[in-house]
Amino acid sequence: MKNQDLDILIKLIAKLPGLGQKSAKRAVLHLLENKEELLSPLIHQLDTAKNNIQRCIACNNLDTSNPCHICMDATRDQKTICVVEQVVDVWAMERTGGYRGLYHILGGTLSALDGVTPDDLAIGSLLRKVSENGTQEVIIALKATVDGQTTAHYLADRLSGHPVKTTRLAHGMPLGGELDYMDDGTIMTALKSRQIL
Amino acid sequence: MKNQDLDILIKLIAKLPGLGQKSAKRAVLHLLENKEELLSPLIHQLDTAKNNIQRCIACNNLDTSNPCHICMDATRDQKTICVVEQVVDVWAMERTGGYRGLYHILGGTLSALDGVTPDDLAIGSLLRKVSENGTQEVIIALKATVDGQTTAHYLADRLSGHPVKTTRLAHGMPLGGELDYMDDGTIMTALKSRQIL
Repeated sequence: MKNQDLDILIKLIAKLPGLGQKSAKRAVLHLLENKEELLSPLIHQLDTAKNNIQRCIACNNLDTSNPCHICMDATRDQKTICVVEQVVDVWAMERTGGYRGLYHILGGTLSALDGVTPDDLAIGSLLRKVSENGTQEVIIALKATVDGQTTAHYLADRLSGHPVKTTRLAHGMPLGGELDYMDDGTIMTALKSRQIL
Repeated sequence: MKNQDLDILIKLIAKLPGLGQKSAKRAVLHLLENKEELLSPLIHQLDTAKNNIQRCIACNNLDTSNPCHICMDATRDQKTICVVEQVVDVWAMERTGGYRGLYHILGGTLSALDGVTPDDLAIGSLLRKVSENGTQEVIIALKATVDGQTTAHYLADRLSGHPVKTTRLAHGMPLGGELDYMDDGTIMTALKSRQIL
């Protein structure tokens, strides 16, 4: 008995990650109740994003400029590439302000379960970039899961033919983490990689 | 270090109920990664909703026609009005298919805490409708909270001058509810309103 236009809109919004049918309904009503302050600017901004944001040809980042502003930034260390899974990971790294090299977004990790093979990931372009740019270090910053680590080892293997150092992020206790709340794997890893004070 | 257009978009999406900064980011990336299948139709549908959906002058429902299709439906019982808080409540009632009267959306409930007074709610228009239409029954279907019940009693009081029967939804155990998981208030109410089998 709902209006058909509303129905289509709710179904579209429900496709966003983290939103179900119920929260999509609430979101749509909130938008319609705030047409001027929220709905209109949202439509405008979605349209701007649709028309202006592109995938960087060099690293797969999303940006209005192509190559993206990170790849174009001459002050960054051009000899170091940080390999991440997704665009959010670039944002997370940039948030820390502690990394000044380039990035390469793989677009996922290898996964036997989900049928993700090396051909599905941006691995060829990474290898090409490494050999063309004379990259000195590739930092693999993938998630600390089985799939992430499998992918890391696969990349290390593929990179072994190049004169490049391959590293990965350290594993261990997160800052502020309490031993009691940590899983056994993390504790074991932190123990094995213990450091001299 | 994020792109500014993306930043504005994420902030707008984060204003939707149920979405925070983090899920808004994921939603935006999902939209940009599915431009043709999701982003374009979403923009179109938001625009359609913005231009076509209006608030019904008779009951405050949201619809493309004004008065809304429920108010215009001559097969419905014109002498019964169900008073609800929001548009979602109309959808919930309609989903059951068990109600064939009209609606009136209050736009909220009285709340001392949030400073919602009778003037903030669509009470005047309800009273006008009741007296003009010769309404026979007003069913108050507000939430079973203190604010909801305060509002119900206030409405009953305001309606007492009109030749109309005022009822409210029954309180008790929800279907499928287990006693052990029910709060004390619900059990007490269900006990007090017990019915002969």
